[in-house]
Amino acid sequence: TFYMQGLAEVPNQQVVTVYGRDKGKAAAFAQRWNIPESTDDMEAVAAREDVDLVIIALPNALHLPATRLIASHKKHIACTKPLARNAEEARQMLEAVQQAGIIHCYGETEVFSPAVIRAKSLIDEGSIGRILTVRSREAHAGPHAPHFWNAEEAGGGALLDMGCHTIEAARYFIGKDIKPVEVLAWGDTMVHTDKTTAEDNAIVLLRFENGAIGQTEVSWTARGSLDLRNEVYGTEGSIFTDVTRSTPINAFVRSTNAYLLEKAESNTGWIFPLPDEARVYGYHEEMKHFVECVAQGKQPRETFTDGLIINTIMDAAYRSMREHRWVPIEI
Amino acid sequence: TFYMQGLAEVPNQQVVTVYGRDKGKAAAFAQRWNIPESTDDMEAVAAREDVDLVIIALPNALHLPATRLIASHKKHIACTKPLARNAEEARQMLEAVQQAGIIHCYGETEVFSPAVIRAKSLIDEGSIGRILTVRSREAHAGPHAPHFWNAEEAGGGALLDMGCHTIEAARYFIGKDIKPVEVLAWGDTMVHTDKTTAEDNAIVLLRFENGAIGQTEVSWTARGSLDLRNEVYGTEGSIFTDVTRSTPINAFVRSTNAYLLEKAESNTGWIFPLPDEARVYGYHEEMKHFVECVAQGKQPRETFTDGLIINTIMDAAYRSMREHRWVPIEI
Amino acid sequence: TFYMQGLAEVPNQQVVTVYGRDKGKAAAFAQRWNIPESTDDMEAVAAREDVDLVIIALPNALHLPATRLIASHKKHIACTKPLARNAEEARQMLEAVQQAGIIHCYGETEVFSPAVIRAKSLIDEGSIGRILTVRSREAHAGPHAPHFWNAEEAGGGALLDMGCHTIEAARYFIGKDIKPVEVLAWGDTMVHTDKTTAEDNAIVLLRFENGAIGQTEVSWTARGSLDLRNEVYGTEGSIFTDVTRSTPINAFVRSTNAYLLEKAESNTGWIFPLPDEARVYGYHEEMKHFVECVAQGKQPRETFTDGLIINTIMDAAYRSMREHRWVPIEI
Amino acid sequence: TFYMQGLAEVPNQQVVTVYGRDKGKAAAFAQRWNIPESTDDMEAVAAREDVDLVIIALPNALHLPATRLIASHKKHIACTKPLARNAEEARQMLEAVQQAGIIHCYGETEVFSPAVIRAKSLIDEGSIGRILTVRSREAHAGPHAPHFWNAEEAGGGALLDMGCHTIEAARYFIGKDIKPVEVLAWGDTMVHTDKTTAEDNAIVLLRFENGAIGQTEVSWTARGSLDLRNEVYGTEGSIFTDVTRSTPINAFVRSTNAYLLEKAESNTGWIFPLPDEARVYGYHEEMKHFVECVAQGKQPRETFTDGLIINTIMDAAYRSMREHRWVPIEI
Repeated sequence: TFYMQGLAEVPNQQVVTVYGRDKGKAAAFAQRWNIPESTDDMEAVAAREDVDLVIIALPNALHLPATRLIASHKKHIACTKPLARNAEEARQMLEAVQQAGIIHCYGETEVFSPAVIRAKSLIDEGSIGRILTVRSREAHAGPHAPHFWNAEEAGGGALLDMGCHTIEAARYFIGKDIKPVEVLAWGDTMVHTDKTTAEDNAIVLLRFENGAIGQTEVSWTARGSLDLRNEVYGTEGSIFTDVTRSTPINAFVRSTNAYLLEKAESNTGWIFPLPDEARVYGYHEEMKHFVECVAQGKQPRETFTDGLIINTIMDAAYRSMREHRWVPIEI
Repeated sequence: TFYMQGLAEVPNQQVVTVYGRDKGKAAAFAQRWNIPESTDDMEAVAAREDVDLVIIALPNALHLPATRLIASHKKHIACTKPLARNAEEARQMLEAVQQAGIIHCYGETEVFSPAVIRAKSLIDEGSIGRILTVRSREAHAGPHAPHFWNAEEAGGGALLDMGCHTIEAARYFIGKDIKPVEVLAWGDTMVHTDKTTAEDNAIVLLRFENGAIGQTEVSWTARGSLDLRNEVYGTEGSIFTDVTRSTPINAFVRSTNAYLLEKAESNTGWIFPLPDEARVYGYHEEMKHFVECVAQGKQPRETFTDGLIINTIMDAAYRSMREHRWVPIEI
Repeated sequence: TFYMQGLAEVPNQQVVTVYGRDKGKAAAFAQRWNIPESTDDMEAVAAREDVDLVIIALPNALHLPATRLIASHKKHIACTKPLARNAEEARQMLEAVQQAGIIHCYGETEVFSPAVIRAKSLIDEGSIGRILTVRSREAHAGPHAPHFWNAEEAGGGALLDMGCHTIEAARYFIGKDIKPVEVLAWGDTMVHTDKTTAEDNAIVLLRFENGAIGQTEVSWTARGSLDLRNEVYGTEGSIFTDVTRSTPINAFVRSTNAYLLEKAESNTGWIFPLPDEARVYGYHEEMKHFVECVAQGKQPRETFTDGLIINTIMDAAYRSMREHRWVPIEI
Repeated sequence: TFYMQGLAEVPNQQVVTVYGRDKGKAAAFAQRWNIPESTDDMEAVAAREDVDLVIIALPNALHLPATRLIASHKKHIACTKPLARNAEEARQMLEAVQQAGIIHCYGETEVFSPAVIRAKSLIDEGSIGRILTVRSREAHAGPHAPHFWNAEEAGGGALLDMGCHTIEAARYFIGKDIKPVEVLAWGDTMVHTDKTTAEDNAIVLLRFENGAIGQTEVSWTARGSLDLRNEVYGTEGSIFTDVTRSTPINAFVRSTNAYLLEKAESNTGWIFPLPDEARVYGYHEEMKHFVECVAQGKQPRETFTDGLIINTIMDAAYRSMREHRWVPIEI
């Protein structure tokens, strides 16, 4: 849904068909978003002549087979985050798109969020000096869709689900040319032991070759609706982004039935409804960039190469959780 | 500039030419925004066959003659705020567009600001009950362009410049079908006596037929960059919007040369850079709505009729300033 | 209760007795606060040899008779706000204490609030230049005690109850030596027509001889717990105080039974519990100052003279409400 | 200075003398705070008959010898944080006071901060369920006094200086009866390599026996004045405290010479002056509690036993920094 909202105002594109594993749901989605056709035959989508770019927004386990299928038809691909369940799958995906010679877009929304882009432009302009530490937090009370809770199918828990955002935020702020060298992670299933064997909370420290530290906090047990923050500390200043609580509108209500924002937990008392939600989270800028890249025949600023790096870091983080120590990153 | 930024992502439109009183500036503007042509001949613009909608973004005194010229060529018009220098001019403008049978769009950005639209949807949904009072504030340290300071040419001071925003915000929140009945205003030239004979500060109370009060605060002497807030008090709740200080990004910097936001006054210490500024202020939603209305051949939700009502209220407010008492509004 | 909390940490004082019109309630209060004695005989209190200072915290109509009684025993007096129901009563109170030669403390907490004192010190230091306008707001959903709702007994509604705070804030920030010259007021019974004949909302503009404006907003119909804010605009800067919503602690709770702050309306979702409430509102600094003044035999910085000025302004404001125009202030 | 401000309003106490290693500075301090006497002879202070409680506010290396001296005179002791340079010294201090049978107060201000106490009362009342994770951050651009930068004399860097606050905050929120079992730490000298061999940034994860995590962030390189925050996440809610930036007063100034708050870095643009600073940081509640404990002859709620636990945890953290892995805590 956020992808469609993100696409809604992107010029020079048209969504011609939607694939769904469930034919009825795909048809309903198509109707809701005014998409001419829908199907449960992925190959048919990939084979269409009028399709330039296929967006993969499927559970993690299906990213690799979907990529192979679409790449075999030489259609450009945008894949949602995380790229894969682990670095091995991610590497195979990267090889598939490279061999096919197609454009490969990695859908890491966080670094397309306007607030985050603005923070980065301040950094690039030198406003806060050299970046020392980045703290990125993404937290809510737990995902809705059942496939997130299946550690096998998903490939991991809260870290795999949201650590991709926070790790890429660290790379983006610290500099994507600075190599991450080692990682330290803690994770635990603190609350949802009835639903998953994966961690529902994790903290990760990522050390870069220049000494900078990216600090990840992810949680599936945090109350108070979605929390999405970055704190960037440089030698000359600090930048803070907070898109869900430092909002341009807040209200006190006796009770409301209005939609407020993703994963809102309360509709009485003080509320923080979020205008332009898909844009704020980065979906609009991301889709616009991907459509432009396809139109211009160039690789985007987030590719499967980035997705592979992130999966590699997360693999090392999971090893660190198990081994109780810092683990080097092999990129 | 904000209009072009607002238009930038509106689908199904193309800016084909730009008019400027100064030919060189028009050409420079065209180049900057990739507009194919520029001219200092307004009639030539109005006469073009490939033009559907003309946007009037000129000093207030030129709104009436420009409207007449464009209307005579039966081109749809969007006019910036305030519609005119006074109700008499606004009435003539409304008559001109009605006689020409064209679509007339009144460019009151405030009620197209996503935060304000979101607040309104909460109100419509019943979240805060019946609206009792609305406080709207727009303030900064004074306009840049010299024509604002000429009371004759502009038609007034801070109230005419910004009261149009705050008054329309009150009508929007309280209900545009509720009639405003009387007005009370204070205004004074507190600081800029060297630059203008018009008021640089004003406070207005606007009483509606149902007893609701719209409270306007405008200032050209307020330090701390642009301040743009609404406080809406209902029988069951309250809504607050603040787009320039309750922002998704803030930073502490030693010093920065980056553009932060309109009328930013400080670039050291704590700063509040505003991402998506044209969108936040309402330019994008406004332009998108106007382009859609032209495409669909329907009048927009803000027309010259609204502009006339606002000019009528502001005329009464200026009379109240002079007469030191409540003044009835004749609409 | 706030007075006792305010007194709790003031050195060199002891509360020896408490008077209550209801003997049982007075005894309960004494027990709760560890006060040795209680009584329903006010004269007995005033006559005690071990009493230096009597604090009048009674409904407005009783301020004058209580002052006369206590003054006749030459005991120093601190009287809660507003000083009286109107300027005529206030004048008689001032005469009574002046004739008795006693110290007379006017309990206007707002100007003893640490945040407000800090703002004033910034102003005095020149940080924001000359003060142009002051907006002061005090609002909540309505008082608890029944005597507030009786316009006759109270002497007025929301304006009399809370306008004393906001008007004195304006005098404090603008300068107590600057004379207020005229006043403009709107007031209405917007919601509580079943409970009172007095206004439950009011807005007042107070013009000072140097052109500065004090803007009062008071409401007994505003949802979202107590709102207590000042916005001070000077030629060189702006200062904002907000003690109930810009707080050092906020929380998201499923539900809590904890006391949060005065007039809290919600105990679920996002809450803003206020630490050190009596201190934040000014009770502590006020009581400390009054006790010191009695110890040192000097008049405090808020006396019955200030109370009389405020009552005079409020009388003029009520006349302005009725007469629909600016009313001069005769001080 | 904060200690004197904290003491200022505590009833039933009197500061009779002040010791300083520099006789002149001690005399100046005494004069400034109206203390009758001053000396550079610590033994003379400890020997005075009119002294009940001695407050040790000396560099870390002197805590142990000062404690031994004062304990030998059987005077009660309050010692500033951290208790010692390491657990071994802390253990000797604890033994000294236990053998002397005196009251031993550990001056950990953070858990006496009114906002933190209020947060704890919400937790105890059950408002946010079982505590899962606590994030505590204390950061500024570096200490003023030179002895902080001498790693030998101080016993450590930013972690020893401020980790005592954040670790005790975690214990306080999670429950002081829950045993901390292991610790993981990263630290680095990122900026101040010219001034110190100790870490100027550190992050610590502290795991408790019930699985709860206390997360410490300390920095001597963070710009933007003092940052002092806690984020407490429970199964049913979340609590956030922020005493230096979510303040009841903020202002925009061209420039000010006023004192704003400890370690303020900017006096232009937006500023956040802090009223009641010593109280907000916890000095007042702490001193009041210690004076009451001495008066009543009971141990306070923070004793040298707590100080020893914290030093033990910090020792383990330093070992973890060196050994690059989780380290068990032996208490």
